[in-house]
Amino acid sequence: MEKREKRAVVLLSGGLDSATVLAIARHQGYQLYAISFEYGQRHDIELQAAHRVAHSMQVKEHAVIAIDLRRIGGSALTADIEVPKDRPLTETSIPITYVPARNTIFLSFALGWAEVLGAADIFIGVNALDYSGYPDCRPEYIAAYEKMANLATSLGVEDRVQFRIQTPLIYLTKAEIIKKGIELGVDYSLTHSCYDPTPDGLACGHCDSCQLRLKGFAEAGFPDPVAYKK
Amino acid sequence: MEKREKRAVVLLSGGLDSATVLAIARHQGYQLYAISFEYGQRHDIELQAAHRVAHSMQVKEHAVIAIDLRRIGGSALTADIEVPKDRPLTETSIPITYVPARNTIFLSFALGWAEVLGAADIFIGVNALDYSGYPDCRPEYIAAYEKMANLATSLGVEDRVQFRIQTPLIYLTKAEIIKKGIELGVDYSLTHSCYDPTPDGLACGHCDSCQLRLKGFAEAGFPDPVAYKK
Repeated sequence: MEKREKRAVVLLSGGLDSATVLAIARHQGYQLYAISFEYGQRHDIELQAAHRVAHSMQVKEHAVIAIDLRRIGGSALTADIEVPKDRPLTETSIPITYVPARNTIFLSFALGWAEVLGAADIFIGVNALDYSGYPDCRPEYIAAYEKMANLATSLGVEDRVQFRIQTPLIYLTKAEIIKKGIELGVDYSLTHSCYDPTPDGLACGHCDSCQLRLKGFAEAGFPDPVAYKK
Repeated sequence: MEKREKRAVVLLSGGLDSATVLAIARHQGYQLYAISFEYGQRHDIELQAAHRVAHSMQVKEHAVIAIDLRRIGGSALTADIEVPKDRPLTETSIPITYVPARNTIFLSFALGWAEVLGAADIFIGVNALDYSGYPDCRPEYIAAYEKMANLATSLGVEDRVQFRIQTPLIYLTKAEIIKKGIELGVDYSLTHSCYDPTPDGLACGHCDSCQLRLKGFAEAGFPDPVAYKK
């Protein structure tokens, strides 16, 4: 029997975490199918970063799915609510940048595509440590999603393929993620993390995402190659 | 404390089943938030039916979410694959009209909206008997989805609201669904079930969905009020 290349669907936001995940999946020998979402973000700078990163990692295909999360609203990232700045990183409540059911929605599209591709592995860059308090980044959520996915699909039910939701970053600190990525050749200058960039794409340096990123680079002992607003 | 009206998000395709579910949720006293999807169907006749049904049931809001399932493909309903006709209803394999991860994707948007609305109940018209062999219509799938949903969301985690995926039709035959709907005042002339209608909206009478519908009306002892192609 011909050995078929193993395929992975990788959720790609264009941020630091998902770029690292893509590099990890590539390192593990998967043929890469990246999936990004155009979801009524305030900025498409994220998507441009996703394109750059996908290209740099030689993905086989990059699907960009348009979905209208604005119709649902409820988040600073999808509605006209201000992005909080300089929020202490020790804050444990769920911030307004949380997008209701976002990872669930994203994983569901990835699952549909994985089924069409015959890919058993779905990679997502969630993190249980530096997770900004998002409920859909926790290991117990991922385990429940995986279980559901295997009951949801024709591939799981008829062909007995076991879907795996792969979360290689889940127990890493931001600094460890960065070190891992640099080791695997990730060019972090291509990535974008800021929730509230300037129109020309400069990171604000003060939203949760910028704070976590800056702290990560500082702890890893590398300079952050992206540009910040002065 | 002011008694707040209980809200339900109801998945509404414009078909017979979801129209009945909407009537059941209304009968149970919920304030109704219907959600439909524009997902690259070959026809928008389904969405027109959804609008008619939503209006007839006095829903509080009807959200139509545009999502591009064509980018994923893999189904006669989202790609250029022919809809099978006169397939025996006793056939147990999963048909090509199965859309990969469709209910998972739809429920995930419903979950996001439910969280924004503070609605603990999500209604979906899945059916374990006349289910055309779709894996994402089975009770074990729904149970797994519900478990995942309660780990996915801020409402579930911080506010300890228990989401329920309500499937009032799951163990009913098509004939029982129709009888129930007629009892609750559903006007089935507003609904649309056919996978492959004529451009002016006549049902084909031969796809799985038409066959199940016609058999259901015949067994229930009522005439089907929609028009079929001669």
